[in-house]
Amino acid sequence: MSSKKSYEELKERFKKIALLGGTSSLLGWDERTYMPRGGANVRAEQLALVAGMIHEEVTDPRVGELLSELEQSDLVKDADSIDAANVREIRHWYGKKIKLPKDLVEEEKKVTTLAQGEWVTARKNNDFKAFQPWLEKIVALKLKIADAYGWEGEPYNALLDDYEPGATVKDVEATFAGLRDDLVVLLGKIKGAPKKPDVSIVERDYDVKLQRIFGEAVAGAMGYDFANGRLDITTHPFCTTIGPGDTRITTRYNPKRLNDALFGTMHEAGHGLYEMGTESEKNFGMPAGEAASLGIHESQSRMWENQVGRSKSFWKYFFPQAQRIFRDSLGDVKLDDFYGAINNVQPSYIRVEADEATYNLHILLRFELERALLTGDLKPADAASEWNSRFEKYFGIKVDCHANGCLQDVHWSAGLIGYFPTYTLGNLYSAQFFAQAKKDIPNLYDQFENGQFSPLREWLREKIHRHGGRYRATVLGKKVTGESLSHKPLIDYMTAKFGEIYGF
Amino acid sequence: MSSKKSYEELKERFKKIALLGGTSSLLGWDERTYMPRGGANVRAEQLALVAGMIHEEVTDPRVGELLSELEQSDLVKDADSIDAANVREIRHWYGKKIKLPKDLVEEEKKVTTLAQGEWVTARKNNDFKAFQPWLEKIVALKLKIADAYGWEGEPYNALLDDYEPGATVKDVEATFAGLRDDLVVLLGKIKGAPKKPDVSIVERDYDVKLQRIFGEAVAGAMGYDFANGRLDITTHPFCTTIGPGDTRITTRYNPKRLNDALFGTMHEAGHGLYEMGTESEKNFGMPAGEAASLGIHESQSRMWENQVGRSKSFWKYFFPQAQRIFRDSLGDVKLDDFYGAINNVQPSYIRVEADEATYNLHILLRFELERALLTGDLKPADAASEWNSRFEKYFGIKVDCHANGCLQDVHWSAGLIGYFPTYTLGNLYSAQFFAQAKKDIPNLYDQFENGQFSPLREWLREKIHRHGGRYRATVLGKKVTGESLSHKPLIDYMTAKFGEIYGF
Repeated sequence: MSSKKSYEELKERFKKIALLGGTSSLLGWDERTYMPRGGANVRAEQLALVAGMIHEEVTDPRVGELLSELEQSDLVKDADSIDAANVREIRHWYGKKIKLPKDLVEEEKKVTTLAQGEWVTARKNNDFKAFQPWLEKIVALKLKIADAYGWEGEPYNALLDDYEPGATVKDVEATFAGLRDDLVVLLGKIKGAPKKPDVSIVERDYDVKLQRIFGEAVAGAMGYDFANGRLDITTHPFCTTIGPGDTRITTRYNPKRLNDALFGTMHEAGHGLYEMGTESEKNFGMPAGEAASLGIHESQSRMWENQVGRSKSFWKYFFPQAQRIFRDSLGDVKLDDFYGAINNVQPSYIRVEADEATYNLHILLRFELERALLTGDLKPADAASEWNSRFEKYFGIKVDCHANGCLQDVHWSAGLIGYFPTYTLGNLYSAQFFAQAKKDIPNLYDQFENGQFSPLREWLREKIHRHGGRYRATVLGKKVTGESLSHKPLIDYMTAKFGEIYGF
Repeated sequence: MSSKKSYEELKERFKKIALLGGTSSLLGWDERTYMPRGGANVRAEQLALVAGMIHEEVTDPRVGELLSELEQSDLVKDADSIDAANVREIRHWYGKKIKLPKDLVEEEKKVTTLAQGEWVTARKNNDFKAFQPWLEKIVALKLKIADAYGWEGEPYNALLDDYEPGATVKDVEATFAGLRDDLVVLLGKIKGAPKKPDVSIVERDYDVKLQRIFGEAVAGAMGYDFANGRLDITTHPFCTTIGPGDTRITTRYNPKRLNDALFGTMHEAGHGLYEMGTESEKNFGMPAGEAASLGIHESQSRMWENQVGRSKSFWKYFFPQAQRIFRDSLGDVKLDDFYGAINNVQPSYIRVEADEATYNLHILLRFELERALLTGDLKPADAASEWNSRFEKYFGIKVDCHANGCLQDVHWSAGLIGYFPTYTLGNLYSAQFFAQAKKDIPNLYDQFENGQFSPLREWLREKIHRHGGRYRATVLGKKVTGESLSHKPLIDYMTAKFGEIYGF
């Protein structure tokens, strides 16, 4: 068989896998949006079945044969080509997945689907004890998976690689350490600053229907395409792709707080733009048509949420609209005061609602706890108390209830252990990318002031989105910015921004 | 291998098929409710993939081996037992499906998924020419399928059996002929009647949100369980089961007509009660856990819509509530006038909005056209004109546009040729079952007047729902009523009802 034919066969196989993956995404989307309660058990079985099928397809020995053949062919001669990248990344994925027995994959899917339902109830009832047996099951399962993959150093490495291919705890830790030190300095300056924003401005009445209208207008201005997507309400916001042409986002509304849904919508729409910007139809199911890593994915959501959505230029354009829509709450507010309020730095319980400066402390905390859960240094039974004591140390406030503590995030119930560090990697990348965008695009902030977001979006599409997974995150980062990943651009950006707001 | 083990294996296989079937149902539900426009192409591919997988599972030679083994075992000794029924019906299904090549199954799914989108547009634009090539494709595909199944008499028989196992055109025609004759007499009496209801009562303003609330209240009173289901809006209303515990219905609202959504909701909730009433969890994926036939299914929806929802007793209970909710439109209306308005008989274009007396003429028309399309006596290109000329003959009115003519129903675009007769079979069964229910349950109408619908629901559950597909429709009908299917109970019921309303 010619290598061209083999490559076509590989593509056909991964297209089928992508169709199944999108079907699984829809089962998951529906579960969290519209599924009636009674459907939970069968849904877990459906998700497990499809996960098992995907696993079987990915680990089909024929995939290994095709890869071996292609690795000897001209197709991969140019290691930088799209085709070579597809072969390289499928090999990486295949190499990991063939180590997992199918029943373990199905079990994980089933347990985590059920556990998410249990988590919702436990969170509502503020009941860690009810969730503990599920956490135990999930940690044991993830450890089994890490062991099956094989790992060096510590089991966490095997799981982290699922979300951030090629990343290691050691590298991540080194970058995080520098960030932690500089964050402490920055937070100290903010704490001792003479000026304090009046946060009550964004804690007035914000009609949920109007929030939705405003959020959709903002997402639309960003370029999120509602003909190829939609916005729904879920407990935990997310972005999911059912297939090329169908990338959906969700958010949650708080009638007494403007920030949550607004910046949440921008965040998820940022993810959505990445998904919509990959050449997913041309490379359907192939790595080049999918995201490079979750860190890169998060850099897109955080850039739109923070560097754009929390910038003064953005609000020079959107604030008059916001004042018209939320007249009772914003009619008498000055732009500068509003800008201060949406950028208020304040240690708080909930990660997804945290300000830019304290956000990464939330991630560092989870990163430490997860690693300890996997090494066995921390028992799941002690996760809540350990969370609370570390939280107090980092944030200087006592966790008042588990719903504001270790039950706040869906990740553990969803089996997403190893995922959290990608949030901070995403923040670092977003600052580094944005600093580059400011160099590459003349008058970027002026454009925001005029409601022009397409120059940034097209820059992102050109530099990042369209490449999909052609380059690993670290390589892509260097291609875009000429530099290795560093915490400096994020710290520089925050120091300048909060220096102005807080007057230091 | 013992027959017990083989039976377990068969059950496991059909549970998997049911999980895939439910996944396909969700893909279809989402397509018609919430999917963004851009998702259409990938959705067609996903549906085709899953249809192909189901086909592969059903036609796996192992199924044939297991059936052969079980057919020799004690399991089927009692031909009336649930186990024997499961083996019998799977054999029937398997015997048909192994005759279909997988690529034909996938092609049908893909073409019909795309055609449904094209139908929506063609209907909106009233453009038969745009739909014609799709109708041609679909008729050709269905003929291919009928030929692959093999048929006696005419190809329609092979397709009809997919929806109404064991039914033949000849039997159906014989029953329909008697119905046709008596309907002509009844409609003549109504036409010449001295009294005429004032239909304008139900064509006033009916706020869509209030319609929804009222419709949900009615469905709830019927026993439709919203913890195991939900109600959404679609162009063409339907009921679909994603799995045990998840049976969803849809409707469509007309702000200037109360009937459509209200009786549509009761209709779909009637289907829903059947699905919720089968022992689908115990017999997951097995014929005994699924509906006996589409005719029996339709008997349930039509009974709740008509024998219950269009009865005076029902409105003695619900009319005061309706008056409170729709005060401006119903506040000054008398119950008898309202009852007349919802039962007004009037030849009209749209089948799903037709009154009880003219409804079956719509079906007879489609039945004739479909048969002719399959024998080749009617070319798809001539379907619209033939429809219009026959319609005028039967109904005495000229079709004003294709959207009110052959483009009104989703069925042809969805490949559901052979399906329509089950609607009339359903009407016949519903009247026959309801006549029996009145004998079996003392004071049935009095119960309706008191808002008590559980005696009827439980009777249906006991006599019909819980048996699922254990008995073929004709056998079930005899078990419940002691008689073969006849058009007499429906004519008797309508003659009495319309005689009172129209004063003949």
